[in-house]
Amino acid sequence: MSIRTRIAIVGAGPAGLLLGRILDTHGIDYVIVERKSLEYTLGRIRAGILEQGSVELLERLGLGERLRREGLEHRGIYLQFAGERHHIDFEKLIGRTVTVYGQQEVVKDLSRAHQAAGTAIYYEAEDVALDGIESERPRVTFRCRGEDVLIEADYVVGTDGFHGVCRPSIPDLEVYDREYPFAWLGVLASVRPSTDELIYALHADGFAMHSMRSMEVSRLYLQVPPDENIDDWPDDRIWEALHRRLGVPGWTLDEGEITDKSITPMRSFVASTMQHGRLFLAGDAAHIVPPTGAKGLNSAIADVAMLGEAIAAGYRGNPEPMSSYSRRALSRQWKTQYFSRWMTAMLHRDDRGDSSEYDYLAQLGQLRYVVESEFAQCSLAEQYTGLPYGL
Amino acid sequence: MSIRTRIAIVGAGPAGLLLGRILDTHGIDYVIVERKSLEYTLGRIRAGILEQGSVELLERLGLGERLRREGLEHRGIYLQFAGERHHIDFEKLIGRTVTVYGQQEVVKDLSRAHQAAGTAIYYEAEDVALDGIESERPRVTFRCRGEDVLIEADYVVGTDGFHGVCRPSIPDLEVYDREYPFAWLGVLASVRPSTDELIYALHADGFAMHSMRSMEVSRLYLQVPPDENIDDWPDDRIWEALHRRLGVPGWTLDEGEITDKSITPMRSFVASTMQHGRLFLAGDAAHIVPPTGAKGLNSAIADVAMLGEAIAAGYRGNPEPMSSYSRRALSRQWKTQYFSRWMTAMLHRDDRGDSSEYDYLAQLGQLRYVVESEFAQCSLAEQYTGLPYGL
Repeated sequence: MSIRTRIAIVGAGPAGLLLGRILDTHGIDYVIVERKSLEYTLGRIRAGILEQGSVELLERLGLGERLRREGLEHRGIYLQFAGERHHIDFEKLIGRTVTVYGQQEVVKDLSRAHQAAGTAIYYEAEDVALDGIESERPRVTFRCRGEDVLIEADYVVGTDGFHGVCRPSIPDLEVYDREYPFAWLGVLASVRPSTDELIYALHADGFAMHSMRSMEVSRLYLQVPPDENIDDWPDDRIWEALHRRLGVPGWTLDEGEITDKSITPMRSFVASTMQHGRLFLAGDAAHIVPPTGAKGLNSAIADVAMLGEAIAAGYRGNPEPMSSYSRRALSRQWKTQYFSRWMTAMLHRDDRGDSSEYDYLAQLGQLRYVVESEFAQCSLAEQYTGLPYGL
Repeated sequence: MSIRTRIAIVGAGPAGLLLGRILDTHGIDYVIVERKSLEYTLGRIRAGILEQGSVELLERLGLGERLRREGLEHRGIYLQFAGERHHIDFEKLIGRTVTVYGQQEVVKDLSRAHQAAGTAIYYEAEDVALDGIESERPRVTFRCRGEDVLIEADYVVGTDGFHGVCRPSIPDLEVYDREYPFAWLGVLASVRPSTDELIYALHADGFAMHSMRSMEVSRLYLQVPPDENIDDWPDDRIWEALHRRLGVPGWTLDEGEITDKSITPMRSFVASTMQHGRLFLAGDAAHIVPPTGAKGLNSAIADVAMLGEAIAAGYRGNPEPMSSYSRRALSRQWKTQYFSRWMTAMLHRDDRGDSSEYDYLAQLGQLRYVVESEFAQCSLAEQYTGLPYGL
C-alpha cells in the first residue's frame, strides 16, 4: 500500500498526537505511524504535571473539557528540608499555575479527538524505517497487519521517543548527555493524597516526593541508587522510607494499596540538532531530562507547538520558522535542561566522592536562600510553570 | 609581659582590624596580635569588590572618606558567553550597587584609623598559641621582639585566616570542603581598564574576567588547570588568551605592563562551628569560597559585623546574640557558599569526565536563561550585592 500525505508523523505518544491536532487546525493532512498498540499507548504511566502553557494549548485545541473538570490546578509546590515544609506560591508570585493531569489522560483525550476526526493512525506498525530524508520526498515504510506500507510525505516528524527510529536516521548526529548517580523509585497508591500540592523533599537519606494523579490516587517517589533492585523494596520498606523522608511535625502520610511500582534511572540527553533535511524531531526523540521539575512532557508539548506553527507557516509560503525550528527548540530546551538539573542537584543526595557532606550542606544553604528570597522563588516559579515558547 | 583585656583578636587582616573598630564604637577594649609585619599586611593583593552592606558598614565606622573618593561604584556587571556581552544592571533591578576598592586599601584605611586611635597591635608575633578557650579566662601567648607576652581576655576572636592557629585550637572540629578542577591565573596590569564594569566571561577555552583596581590599574583573570605552572605563562601568552576569551566584536582590550601575576587554586571550605567555648572564628579562619562572585572579604566583613554587635550585646547583659553567632553566621555563609559555587559552576569549563560537552551547553542555557529573566537577574543581583546580615 502506498500513501501520499504532507506530514508523516512517527510516534503516537502525546507529542505526535498533539502535533496532529495542531496540523488539523491548519488543514494540513498527515498520517501517524506507531509501533505499539493503542492500548499500550493509553496505558503508559508517565508524567503528571502540565505547565500553564501546556494547559492553554490543549484548551485552545478543544482538548480542555475533561482537563478542566478532572485536572487539579495547583498554585504552587512545597519545598521541604531540615524538617521544615515551605510553600512556594506560584500564583501569588507570578500569577501562573500548573495542573496535575496524567500523561495517559492527555493521550486518552487526544486519542478520542483523533478517533472522532477519523485520523489515519497505523498502530502496531512493524519494521518502521525512514528513507530519503535528505531528498524532497522523504518516505516512511513499515508493515501493518501483514501488509507493506509506504508513506510518501513532504516532511517526516519523529515523535517516537528516546528509543525510536527517527533520531538514529540522522547521519553523524552528535549527542550530549549526562548520567546521574541515582534513580527514582515511584509508586502509585490507592489513597487520597496527604497533601494539597506536590511536596519536594531533601532529607539526609535522599530525595522524596509526594505527588498525585487524582483525589483518589497518590504518586510517591524515593531517591534510590541507579542499580537498585525493585525486589529489595517490599511495600512496608517503601512506606517506612516515605514516612521518614517526608515527615514533618503535625502531618501524617496516609498509606494505601500500592498498585504499581517501578525504578526509573535518570539522565540528561540532547541531540545536537532537531532537524536534518526533511526530518524534524520533537519531544523525547530529541531530548531527555531528569524528572525533577516535570519537564519531559511539557518540553514535548512546547516542541510540537513550535513545530506545528512552523509547518503551517511553511505551507503559507514562509519557510523561516521551519528552518529556525531546531535552533529555537534547542534554545528553550537547554534552558529547561539547566532548570531540570538545578532542581535535581538541589534536591538529591550525591554520596559519591569526598565532598558529599559539603555538598549536602550547600544544598541546604541553597534551599534556605530560595525560601527566603522572593526573587529566587519567582525564578523557580517562572521555570516550573513554563518558559515561553520561542515562536 | 602580661596583658588583661576584654577581647583578644588574633589576626590583623581586614576582619580583625574591622572588628576592633566596631568594638571601639562600643567602648570595649581589645588587643590585636598578628604574626606578620604591618608592611606585609598592607601589601597583600586580594579581593577588590565590596558589597553595598560592606560599604555602608565602613562608612558608619568613619572609614568611608577615601572609599567614597577613590572607590569605583559599579551599578552592575557584564555576563559574557557565546560571543555576546550582556549587562546586568543591579541598580536598576534592585537599587543596590557594589564598589571596587581593593582589600589592601581597606586594610590601609583601617590601619590608619587604628594608628590614630592608638590601638595595641602586636605585629610580628611569634609562636602565637591559644590556651583555656573552654575556661572563663582564655589566654593568647606569643613572643614579640624577644619578649614573652601573655594576654588574658574574656573572649578570643580568631580572624587569622585559613592557615591561622585559632581554628586548629577547636578540638574535634568537623570541616566540610570541596576542591575544584581549576585555578585562576590573575594579573595586575598598568593600564586603564577597557571596561566600565567587571566582565565575567565563559568561553569555550574557559573562564576569563576583566576586573580593575582603579582607573589606572586593570585586574585580569584566566581559568587555568589547578597544577598550572606560572612560568608557562609569559605575558604574551596571557594577553593572547585574554584577547581570545574576552573578545567581542567592536571592543578592544588594551594591554599594559603586567606588574604582578599569580595562580590561585580554588576551594570551598566551611568549619562546622564558628564558636567553641570562648573562642569565636570570623572570615577565612572559618570559611573559604572560590573567588567567583567576590564573597571572601565580604563574608569576613559580615561575620565581624554580626560578631561585634553580639559581643557588645553580651557586655550589656544580653548573651543571646553571642550564643547564636555561629548559627547565624553559618546560615548566611552556607547561602554564600551556594552562590559562589553557582557562579563558579556557571562560568568555568570542567573538561573532566564524559559529560563535559553536555555541561558546557547546559551552562550556555543557564546563562541564556539568566540574561532573559528579570527574576534570575534580580536573584543574582541581590546575592552579588550582598545578602542581609543575620543580626
